[in-house]
Amino acid sequence: MLIVQKYGGTSVGSLERIENVAKRVAKAKDEGNDLVVVVSAMSGETNKLIEYAHHFSKTPSKREMDILLSSGERVTASLLAIALQEMGYKAIALTGRRAGILTDDSHTYARIESIKTDVIKNELKKGNIVIVAGFQGINKDGDVTTLGRGGSDLSAVALAGALGADACEIYSDVDGVYTTDPRIEPRAKRLDKISYDEMLELSSLGAKVLQNRSVELAKKMGVKIIAKSSFSDGAGTVISKEDSSMEEVVVSGIALDKNQARVSLRDVVDRPGIAAEIFNILANEQINVDMIIQNASKEGMTNLGFTVPQSEIERAKKAIESFAHDYGSVDYDEDVCKVSIVGVGMKSHSGIAAKAFSVMAENRINIEMISTSEIKISMIISERFGELAVRVLHEAYELDK
Amino acid sequence: MLIVQKYGGTSVGSLERIENVAKRVAKAKDEGNDLVVVVSAMSGETNKLIEYAHHFSKTPSKREMDILLSSGERVTASLLAIALQEMGYKAIALTGRRAGILTDDSHTYARIESIKTDVIKNELKKGNIVIVAGFQGINKDGDVTTLGRGGSDLSAVALAGALGADACEIYSDVDGVYTTDPRIEPRAKRLDKISYDEMLELSSLGAKVLQNRSVELAKKMGVKIIAKSSFSDGAGTVISKEDSSMEEVVVSGIALDKNQARVSLRDVVDRPGIAAEIFNILANEQINVDMIIQNASKEGMTNLGFTVPQSEIERAKKAIESFAHDYGSVDYDEDVCKVSIVGVGMKSHSGIAAKAFSVMAENRINIEMISTSEIKISMIISERFGELAVRVLHEAYELDK
Repeated sequence: MLIVQKYGGTSVGSLERIENVAKRVAKAKDEGNDLVVVVSAMSGETNKLIEYAHHFSKTPSKREMDILLSSGERVTASLLAIALQEMGYKAIALTGRRAGILTDDSHTYARIESIKTDVIKNELKKGNIVIVAGFQGINKDGDVTTLGRGGSDLSAVALAGALGADACEIYSDVDGVYTTDPRIEPRAKRLDKISYDEMLELSSLGAKVLQNRSVELAKKMGVKIIAKSSFSDGAGTVISKEDSSMEEVVVSGIALDKNQARVSLRDVVDRPGIAAEIFNILANEQINVDMIIQNASKEGMTNLGFTVPQSEIERAKKAIESFAHDYGSVDYDEDVCKVSIVGVGMKSHSGIAAKAFSVMAENRINIEMISTSEIKISMIISERFGELAVRVLHEAYELDK
Repeated sequence: MLIVQKYGGTSVGSLERIENVAKRVAKAKDEGNDLVVVVSAMSGETNKLIEYAHHFSKTPSKREMDILLSSGERVTASLLAIALQEMGYKAIALTGRRAGILTDDSHTYARIESIKTDVIKNELKKGNIVIVAGFQGINKDGDVTTLGRGGSDLSAVALAGALGADACEIYSDVDGVYTTDPRIEPRAKRLDKISYDEMLELSSLGAKVLQNRSVELAKKMGVKIIAKSSFSDGAGTVISKEDSSMEEVVVSGIALDKNQARVSLRDVVDRPGIAAEIFNILANEQINVDMIIQNASKEGMTNLGFTVPQSEIERAKKAIESFAHDYGSVDYDEDVCKVSIVGVGMKSHSGIAAKAFSVMAENRINIEMISTSEIKISMIISERFGELAVRVLHEAYELDK
């Protein structure tokens, strides 16, 4: 099998841990696999470099930041190759550029445009374990680019896709995807498998496990991801296309997102284009809007609610107040959170939403906003009831069983 | 003027020092110069990375070492560019590869084969201060290579040569080249100028100032070097072609090299090819031979003496003893040092050697070996008299005047 493995910053956070990773890689090689191993920078290294840059400038040039930040992964990649060579394995370290990763020009948040796989394929043919510095590529001018936070996941998934790998194993300090955050509900259970779409919806849970862009790319390229821990030997969680067995599981997990603030516009004049106007203003200010809800109020008027990240609420207020016409009143609530129930089985089962609302009522938790998709029900509630809501929902859907 | 500046590890050893370098660069720019600035890694950084590698292997792969070690200069280059941009200057950081530095395949000790200057020239034309990560290039496959210890000096000189720069300023923590080591002779004086050849002969003094390969390259390419301190504002020492004013100075400096061990072979059978045989054995063992002296003894026999670095004496003993024939006896002395008197004026003045020998005799310092070139007289003496010899010679040639 051809396997792409990716080890995150914590997994390569010290020389001893790099040694530990070398042993895992060696074991996979001994089992007869061809291996491409993508590594992050040692944990803390990237933050240190960012601090260095901020010593000189609050807004350092992104082009130069990419040269700076791409150095950390080169260190880990070369050290891991050296460790494997010392253990008697054939291994070669490649920078993002040498691994053929070509991106667009968006420094610090580049998108992978294509991958020239000939160098990697050639090294695999020679029997080498190929170690690739994650998080980086080059643009058409040959300048180094980086892929944004968590970009090494993206490197791994893109390489797995381009090489037609049998699996992309993403190693971190968490041994898979859970039904909810175990710090909130200790009875949370690791999922054996989950679909790409569920994973995307659970991303607020899974932020530490997998970066959203990588899941989207994996879905697009059909790459099977296995989220595993580099510190234990569990089977991890397989993230792949929906299959029939997945649909039997009605609810896969409960996610909690505390980084939410609510904006409610009341008595908005209901004419065509009004919503577009409002959200264009927010988009121009680069404010990320999450949930959007509109429902009719009295005649010719409508109520419009949406949520933004808490850190953006002040800017959102300014933007909304610049649009000081065509609505009756506005109110803001920063002390809210979003609880989401996620599951692909949901679409073929009725009553899931009803059960959620009943459970919330039984626990006297007021629901401020509701939004649903085919595989998700999200509720905006008061922030202080967030953990309680997760626990009662986790139990109601028997996720601990 | 087009000036190439190079700042060594100590000069960029902290964020504050990088800021200080940015101010120097800005000043040179304000004076109307075009600038290419080559930087080393922050001091200690390269050693740290070497230690990391040695954690995994005593003999890490050189190819991987180059990926590892080239990361430090990228950090400094990008930080310096960011600092200059923040000060309102146009600046751009380039890796060795982007600066067009092409080398051979000798990882960790690569030779520069050519420099494609089009990117640098283009950035200069745009008004940019061009910051180049020193010490690194790429080979024809596109793999990163490094140029060996002190390789950033080499990067700077090669760039100055290729760009036809008016000067190559090498900044370190020393403000120039001295008549001798000021720690030995406090009356040592900074030289205003010195020829390439003298600088090469004084290299044991100047190790901290300039790497020998860079001086050789500067000589070959006719690059004027100015050795300066980044911590003060002195004029530094100009290292350039011999000019007539230089020849008026009979002796430029006194060098002391304590890393010497002497090997003397007595009563070697004097037949053609015998010296070649001996030194081939040493060369095969990669032992660096410094001074070599041969003189006739009794009929058909000769005495052969040479020096090697102290760290290589054990290997030299083994090699010599494997050649256990064709000579009478051998003795070794590890407690020796080499004192050298250097000056281009020497060749047009007689009596320089005689004065040296007299001074040594007056001070009862026994000379074990003598070797002379057109611009140098070297003497091997007992190690404990090294400093004394430097001081009395420094005075005898009135270098403190």
